[in-house]
Amino acid sequence: MSIATEMLTLATEARDASRVIATLSSAVKNELLLKMAERLELNAANLQQANQLDLQAGRDKGMATAMLDRLELSDSVISSMAGGLREVAALPDPVGEVTGMWVRPNGIRVGRQRIPLGVIGIIYESRPNVTADAAALCLKSGNAVILRGGSEAINSNRAIGEVLQQAIADQGLPAAVLQVVTTSDRSAVTELLKLEGQIDLIIPRGGEGLIRFVSENSRIPVIKHYKGVCHTYVDAAADFEMAERICLNEKAQRPGVCNALETLLVHRDAAAVFLPQIAKAMARAGVELRGCERCCQLVPGMTPATEADWPAEYLDLILAVKIVDDFDAAREHINRYCSLHTETIVTRDYATAQRFLREINSSVVMVNASSRFSDGGQLGLGAEIGISTSKLHSFGPMGLEDLTTRKFIVLGDGQIRE
Amino acid sequence: MSIATEMLTLATEARDASRVIATLSSAVKNELLLKMAERLELNAANLQQANQLDLQAGRDKGMATAMLDRLELSDSVISSMAGGLREVAALPDPVGEVTGMWVRPNGIRVGRQRIPLGVIGIIYESRPNVTADAAALCLKSGNAVILRGGSEAINSNRAIGEVLQQAIADQGLPAAVLQVVTTSDRSAVTELLKLEGQIDLIIPRGGEGLIRFVSENSRIPVIKHYKGVCHTYVDAAADFEMAERICLNEKAQRPGVCNALETLLVHRDAAAVFLPQIAKAMARAGVELRGCERCCQLVPGMTPATEADWPAEYLDLILAVKIVDDFDAAREHINRYCSLHTETIVTRDYATAQRFLREINSSVVMVNASSRFSDGGQLGLGAEIGISTSKLHSFGPMGLEDLTTRKFIVLGDGQIRE
Repeated sequence: MSIATEMLTLATEARDASRVIATLSSAVKNELLLKMAERLELNAANLQQANQLDLQAGRDKGMATAMLDRLELSDSVISSMAGGLREVAALPDPVGEVTGMWVRPNGIRVGRQRIPLGVIGIIYESRPNVTADAAALCLKSGNAVILRGGSEAINSNRAIGEVLQQAIADQGLPAAVLQVVTTSDRSAVTELLKLEGQIDLIIPRGGEGLIRFVSENSRIPVIKHYKGVCHTYVDAAADFEMAERICLNEKAQRPGVCNALETLLVHRDAAAVFLPQIAKAMARAGVELRGCERCCQLVPGMTPATEADWPAEYLDLILAVKIVDDFDAAREHINRYCSLHTETIVTRDYATAQRFLREINSSVVMVNASSRFSDGGQLGLGAEIGISTSKLHSFGPMGLEDLTTRKFIVLGDGQIRE
Repeated sequence: MSIATEMLTLATEARDASRVIATLSSAVKNELLLKMAERLELNAANLQQANQLDLQAGRDKGMATAMLDRLELSDSVISSMAGGLREVAALPDPVGEVTGMWVRPNGIRVGRQRIPLGVIGIIYESRPNVTADAAALCLKSGNAVILRGGSEAINSNRAIGEVLQQAIADQGLPAAVLQVVTTSDRSAVTELLKLEGQIDLIIPRGGEGLIRFVSENSRIPVIKHYKGVCHTYVDAAADFEMAERICLNEKAQRPGVCNALETLLVHRDAAAVFLPQIAKAMARAGVELRGCERCCQLVPGMTPATEADWPAEYLDLILAVKIVDDFDAAREHINRYCSLHTETIVTRDYATAQRFLREINSSVVMVNASSRFSDGGQLGLGAEIGISTSKLHSFGPMGLEDLTTRKFIVLGDGQIRE
């Protein structure tokens, strides 16, 4: 069987199975997730045996220690996978929710009701725990899921998939609601990305290279984000103690993530006081500052920023800093360089806060709070399947609701169109 | 200037202008639409002069009368364009609506607020009135719009565009919020479809050929529907008088549209009574029936259906008819052949109606009402920019709300992440 035929068969089975899971009650889906969690824990030894094959292959190829760590299915990773499944089981089910209903003059009632998307493909790298985490969210929202992890985790992913499928079969459900693509043929992804009739959505998770490859080769809608170039604007009317606390948290609490601060904009009337203050605090936290010309005059010893610093996503203890003349200049800088991820203002001024909320159209816009809250869990979505920085379908962190769409339902009593 | 550079320049200007219109108040946008309506009426003679050039070129090429009719900017077409602008002005503005807001345990308030998509490209054929209709919906929802009509209406579209741009300039707004692409170079569309950084959404309106071309060549998300193969299932427990009235309305009131009925499914226990009744009514309405084997046995003289009839979108006074054994068989037939447009059940049975609403996941699902209501205006969306039969972003008829997305807003008082 060619890889194209194999993928089409697999996706067609997923499409058929998606019709079954789409109509299951929340109770049945929750029971399934709990059984999956139990099965993972019971089969920990088998999973770790399969995982050893991947770890050995990684070591043979000279894989870096950090990568090997991410690949390892330790006891605590397995228990956290099981915990994740139980958490998703406890979340509210978005399917079936009627988000609005109204009556037309002729008496028909029109509503919009949430339904699953159908079949979701997840293309990811490295961490095998994504296999369980992503599966939980897709199944809870009534979708079938096709999972394709990286070749470096192929044995671990296959083993996790088999354990989860056993739980599915135990519940009398079609195993094809969850499929793990474990062929070593690299064209499997390219073939999957062509199946627009069978797969409704692709979510790539991994490095920028993977994401670009997927979005350039897909005939299926892709939801993704490339990077997070997050800005914080400290207004003239900011509480500088609060601004310091927020900026430090944004930059230094976990610098390697997409919601970390990358560029700090400071109103010129705040600069004389705030810039030396934040420079000292950042230095204590080990952060290198790269400043505009005016910044460098105010704070001696700051590295001069070049044009390359403004669009940079450092993911490191480095921060670009710029003095701006007013709100408009801050907005123009953000519009030019931001990645539509998360932008923050620190201010005590009501009108300025309102303008920022209205005029900055990134996926998350914050007043007086750390950009580190820009995350599905922190924002209260319960769990996160990914983040979208393109505007169609979902914008920002995505939870269970984002794995659904809405159909119209019409309740009549014999009305016809005149 | 190459056509690629020309399109990039135009789209970049649209992107800049989109930031201006995104933050306008509803009052300013409504005033703009009313001025546009007034300008169209004042310039009726100029528009008709330009339209004459297209009509003459059409006649010279031997264009069919029906096509010439669609191309004509008669007094009544111009007055209906102006009326359409005024209607859109009167609709509620979706921008700024906060669709939900909640408080997290740490006290941050998280909400989701509607914002415009940004820049919308409309690729359409034939009727030049689309230029004004589509522009009104895009501008009202705070988006910039790029319009590319067919070459057969190029002079009319250019003239309408100029009139609308005058109204925009009169209001002191950037004319680039509305741009009409009037180059005769056919690669203009292909170039536009590459500009994923400048354009957020493409909506093609026209025949299946145009829609396939756009969706196969676009790097930008496309919302579209190919066809409407609508089914009505007459249950054993149907009120047959109501079923007859609904089916006739669905098939014969306007057979050439995408929400007309194409396949009638009849429960076997209803067939003996209902099939002869509906056959007689359809015959009076001039509808040709193409029936399954059992149908042909029950109603002599019915044309036998072939496999090609089940997925057919006739757009004509032809109806495929099939007897099914039960609800499951009806659902399986619909799942196999429907285009996810509109499906209807006629029944008096509560449980069967509920099952249909739950288990059929087309974009519009109806109980005891005519499929002809599957339209943005009829469903109460106010106006319709198009219909989507793919599930991402929008599913079903699309109104102003579907030209927006939602950003997260976070209101804090100094919270940081621990």
